[in-house]
Amino acid sequence: MKISTIGEFGLINRIARKPNDKSIIVGIGDDAAVVKIGKKYVVCTTDTLIEGDHFSLEYYSPEQVGMKAIEVNVSDIGSMGAVPKYALISLALRKGMDVAFVERLYKGMRSAAGKYGIEIIGGNTAHANQIVIHVDLIGFLEIKKLKLRSMAKPGDFILVSGDLGGSAAGLNLLKNNIPGHAKTKKRHLEPKAKFHKVRPFLRYINAMQDISDGLASEITHVCSQSKVGALLFADNVPIKEETRQAALVVKKDALLYALYGGEDFELIYTVSEKNLNKVRGYLIGEITSKKDIMMYRNGKNIPLRKRGYDHFA
Amino acid sequence: MKISTIGEFGLINRIARKPNDKSIIVGIGDDAAVVKIGKKYVVCTTDTLIEGDHFSLEYYSPEQVGMKAIEVNVSDIGSMGAVPKYALISLALRKGMDVAFVERLYKGMRSAAGKYGIEIIGGNTAHANQIVIHVDLIGFLEIKKLKLRSMAKPGDFILVSGDLGGSAAGLNLLKNNIPGHAKTKKRHLEPKAKFHKVRPFLRYINAMQDISDGLASEITHVCSQSKVGALLFADNVPIKEETRQAALVVKKDALLYALYGGEDFELIYTVSEKNLNKVRGYLIGEITSKKDIMMYRNGKNIPLRKRGYDHFA
Repeated sequence: MKISTIGEFGLINRIARKPNDKSIIVGIGDDAAVVKIGKKYVVCTTDTLIEGDHFSLEYYSPEQVGMKAIEVNVSDIGSMGAVPKYALISLALRKGMDVAFVERLYKGMRSAAGKYGIEIIGGNTAHANQIVIHVDLIGFLEIKKLKLRSMAKPGDFILVSGDLGGSAAGLNLLKNNIPGHAKTKKRHLEPKAKFHKVRPFLRYINAMQDISDGLASEITHVCSQSKVGALLFADNVPIKEETRQAALVVKKDALLYALYGGEDFELIYTVSEKNLNKVRGYLIGEITSKKDIMMYRNGKNIPLRKRGYDHFA
Repeated sequence: MKISTIGEFGLINRIARKPNDKSIIVGIGDDAAVVKIGKKYVVCTTDTLIEGDHFSLEYYSPEQVGMKAIEVNVSDIGSMGAVPKYALISLALRKGMDVAFVERLYKGMRSAAGKYGIEIIGGNTAHANQIVIHVDLIGFLEIKKLKLRSMAKPGDFILVSGDLGGSAAGLNLLKNNIPGHAKTKKRHLEPKAKFHKVRPFLRYINAMQDISDGLASEITHVCSQSKVGALLFADNVPIKEETRQAALVVKKDALLYALYGGEDFELIYTVSEKNLNKVRGYLIGEITSKKDIMMYRNGKNIPLRKRGYDHFA
């Protein structure tokens, strides 16, 4: 089997083994791993930005690449209900690159890290044909209950923390050299982790995950790991007017951006009916005991395909 | 300034900042970072193997690449006096690669990880033009005293845990397509962390570092961070007969392999005169208060140049 034919998630599952160690609370398969060290729950995540795949210096300033590298990892830590603390930064750089690039990249990293009180404690450098920026982030759980993908229950409502599709809309504008739409382009170039939005009501959330690969992909992960299904209401998916306008310019459907675009870094979470009045967010559907993932649109229920942004698709 | 003109170490120092957080015991600049979590000292390191730079599939089997990825990180954790525990693995793979490659790579990783009781707890995959294997390793300090590069004292003896130059000799045989010399080639293809050699007498060691970039480079790090100098005795540098033979074949000086070859992953450590009878290893020199780094060879002291294996050299 060729790697191009299997999804990232499938690959990880193929190579994963059940851990032997009881201090490993969450191993491979969620947004981050969790280990118990003494009395603390330590959350570790790692993410790689590769030039040409995750960013292009045609659109991004070095500072923006640096900020993005930190924000995507903060988002992974936040989606477990944890707070980031320490970062290790590994860079692979092209030979002959100017040191000013590295300094600007680090300026972006430090500015994003500073927002969250993250300390950069180590890392290394190497060279490669493409720029590879690898961030490891270590954080701590503040409350006892982890927010895992596997914790959704039938009857839960599904919420998202903010509007979707903005990042994909921005990327499409950039790729097509469309002038204007600065605000929407910025949503792609300067994504922000959104954990602060759910932090005040964290304890009322059952399952949670960040939307890095698109709503359809993320709800599929939540459902498959929780062994449930879902019904989403297409008209309830929050999409900003500026995102719709940007989609129109390149003749795309803004809903597809929300479902399959990714990199919005909003959070998707499930909440029991009892706790619904204690949380905020956009209610977009409900968890069902029937395992299908359906979407209600134009008066009928249709199966929601998983196809999201997938590195090996 | 172009990146090609500055060393890896210089680059890291340029971008490093003094940490604000008192729980950061060791930040950027040593083999690994150390943070205090509760009562535990947690040691974190990260290392990247890049195809064409750190390995070539012309010589290496996928299993060997996997083993090496783990061993180099174990070596970094061990050189702080710590024991590895959890790993995160991030892979960037070329499109169209066979999944069998990944499975063989993981087989190698698991076999090396298993030796040390390391659990693989997470990671991610992406694609790139070159294979990039990124390992994060988290370990714990067993005794209270960290072994840092900065802890060498004038009058200390300098020891190494085993013979040097074998890996570089093997690489040169492989690069020049020399047949035979299987044992020496294996020293390049299957490097092993050597922490077990020093673990029994860890508490008698002052400064320690692993030899990943060559003896000359490592002693320079130890001296500059400890604000001391060193005198090495060339004839005391342990070099195996098979390494000397392999060097002869390609008309190289085996001592240069030991000094500048790197990837031996033996440990270099300093010990006070009082504790010398409590440790093992090859005594190769002494720490001096005068800050020069000298080598005694053929009846005279000559300055030892730092030039080691350097990614940006």
